Amino acid sequence: MKKLINKPDDVIREQLEGMQAAHADLLKVNYEPFYITRAGGPVKGKVALVSGGGSGHEPMHGGFVGHGMLHAACPGEVFTSPTPDQMHEAAKAADGGAGVLNIVKNYTGDVMNFEMAAELAMADGIKVQNIVIDDDIAVKDSLYTAGRRGVGSTVLIEKICGAASEKGYDLEKLSALCRTLNQNGRSMGMALTSCITPGNGEPSFEIGDDEMEIGIGIHGEPGIKRDKIKSVDEITEMMTVSIIEDKPYTRKLKEWDFGKNEWVERELTDEPLKKGDKVIAFVNSMGGTPVSELYGVYRKMAQITDKFGLKIVRNLIGPYITSLEMQGCSITLMKVDDEMIKLWDAPVYTPGLKWGK
Amino acid sequence: MKKLINKPDDVIREQLEGMQAAHADLLKVNYEPFYITRAGGPVKGKVALVSGGGSGHEPMHGGFVGHGMLHAACPGEVFTSPTPDQMHEAAKAADGGAGVLNIVKNYTGDVMNFEMAAELAMADGIKVQNIVIDDDIAVKDSLYTAGRRGVGSTVLIEKICGAASEKGYDLEKLSALCRTLNQNGRSMGMALTSCITPGNGEPSFEIGDDEMEIGIGIHGEPGIKRDKIKSVDEITEMMTVSIIEDKPYTRKLKEWDFGKNEWVERELTDEPLKKGDKVIAFVNSMGGTPVSELYGVYRKMAQITDKFGLKIVRNLIGPYITSLEMQGCSITLMKVDDEMIKLWDAPVYTPGLKWGK
Repeated sequence: MKKLINKPDDVIREQLEGMQAAHADLLKVNYEPFYITRAGGPVKGKVALVSGGGSGHEPMHGGFVGHGMLHAACPGEVFTSPTPDQMHEAAKAADGGAGVLNIVKNYTGDVMNFEMAAELAMADGIKVQNIVIDDDIAVKDSLYTAGRRGVGSTVLIEKICGAASEKGYDLEKLSALCRTLNQNGRSMGMALTSCITPGNGEPSFEIGDDEMEIGIGIHGEPGIKRDKIKSVDEITEMMTVSIIEDKPYTRKLKEWDFGKNEWVERELTDEPLKKGDKVIAFVNSMGGTPVSELYGVYRKMAQITDKFGLKIVRNLIGPYITSLEMQGCSITLMKVDDEMIKLWDAPVYTPGLKWGK
Repeated sequence: MKKLINKPDDVIREQLEGMQAAHADLLKVNYEPFYITRAGGPVKGKVALVSGGGSGHEPMHGGFVGHGMLHAACPGEVFTSPTPDQMHEAAKAADGGAGVLNIVKNYTGDVMNFEMAAELAMADGIKVQNIVIDDDIAVKDSLYTAGRRGVGSTVLIEKICGAASEKGYDLEKLSALCRTLNQNGRSMGMALTSCITPGNGEPSFEIGDDEMEIGIGIHGEPGIKRDKIKSVDEITEMMTVSIIEDKPYTRKLKEWDFGKNEWVERELTDEPLKKGDKVIAFVNSMGGTPVSELYGVYRKMAQITDKFGLKIVRNLIGPYITSLEMQGCSITLMKVDDEMIKLWDAPVYTPGLKWGK
């Protein structure tokens, strides 16, 4: 196993210690249980944005804690949901009196645990809402998911909602923004190689020297098809066109109903992208693919969005939601309006994403 | 060959097209010959900072073109020096009337070609100085180099000198700063895997499944020793202690003498790091190592610098000077004074490095 680690059991704690040593100005790591909050403590009067999920997708989510983005993050073991306990403690530590919005990627364990954590926090008198992200158009119902998986949109949503929280959006308005952004975003990924979790020591899946996996998830879950490696132009065209031509998708996602005081299923249908839409384009590395290759992807993607009459107004290119050292990439296109663009442009200051001040 | 590319011959051009499409607000790509300048044209009255080298080390150098860092960059073919022609054209395009400082990594081809380019630009009436970076303590005289190789310090120097140029340093003062920073910086790298250049299609070197290479260069040049993979703590300790305990190093580097109007060798001896020194600590991914593992390196490195009484005042963690998809890392420690820290903190706005505005 070719990794820069000590004992597999110590990987998460030691990497968190490294983050703490490197970014004491931005964040504070709690070790029992694991969660990360902003260095300055809760932000009074602002809705606290909390996210979390299995480790191995760095810099998500701990690397996105800081001004203009998350207030807290809960790292699970590698590719494993964090526990309700972690999420509950993070909510308590991050709440500044205006409530907590949990941004939850759609994996069965994450969804279930964030629901339990929300209930625990509500029992403490904290107002909490959960919004589930499910933007991966590749597959419905997979190894870890009922419905579509939550992937690249999560990064863009954490940035935009983080700025909205700084701007003073209340919990209802922020939840509505988060929900809309999820409906506005679509993603698809692919892999050239597998990855190795430290605990297991073996590749998550086998793939031939001349093969690639299209539609892969961020845990190496199977995608749509296994194929011979194609050119970056062919791969990019296939993914981009699939995203743009994706049909309206209807999902039922659970949210807390503050009137009924219970979880309710909200049926949401998104509209496909159409000519004239403004989008944020996000080309992501799965971890092992260098940024140079992402520019090859971006080149073709921009030609295709142009052909379909989409206008890329902002972009993000780099390793922001990874699968350890997996080689591959994902593309996310998210429709945005002028307010969302303004929120995107707002200052952000975290270990993983930084601009303005 | 598992890469997101089309034809190997088109890789550089297409990736540059992708950069241009993504960052038209920041930079402008020239295609015949290849060079990248700032989108806004030359900056009047400020010394133009120009760098370049073989491609494959992204985001260096093209990704560092923009406000607060480089004015122009020349990408060669993968792991191959750019030509004097590229460097000459870049100097002409970037010069804002206050001269050009070429930041040159110490590889035989780069040094020779930047000297020729400087002479060509001087023949055009542009004032040019070349400062050579040679911070890699691992080996002296290697596959591509006479003397020590130029590696991680280059990134830190381009940031700090970029800020100094914005601040109005003239060519002499900026050259002196660049020279001092080079003497102040020391680096060492290691690799877990090889990398594959698109043109060749085969790994640059062979390495066993249980082996690592210590002291490797950014082109996969051999290092100090081949060893069984050790723990991240052992690897980090070995590299960090080597950097800190490095003996005074004397090199002769050619610079232009504006009085004599010729190249002269300047003998420079640096002082080892000592207790109480303030340093910028840079933990770099060779491309294929994910940021999570870099935090494991940072953790141990910070413990060791602490033990030696060094004070890490700033840090940089991520893939900033890479070797395609190679797995591995490098550590750079650079002694800085308060003025250098201020320049480090100054706004930078490039595709690869961004903060403030």
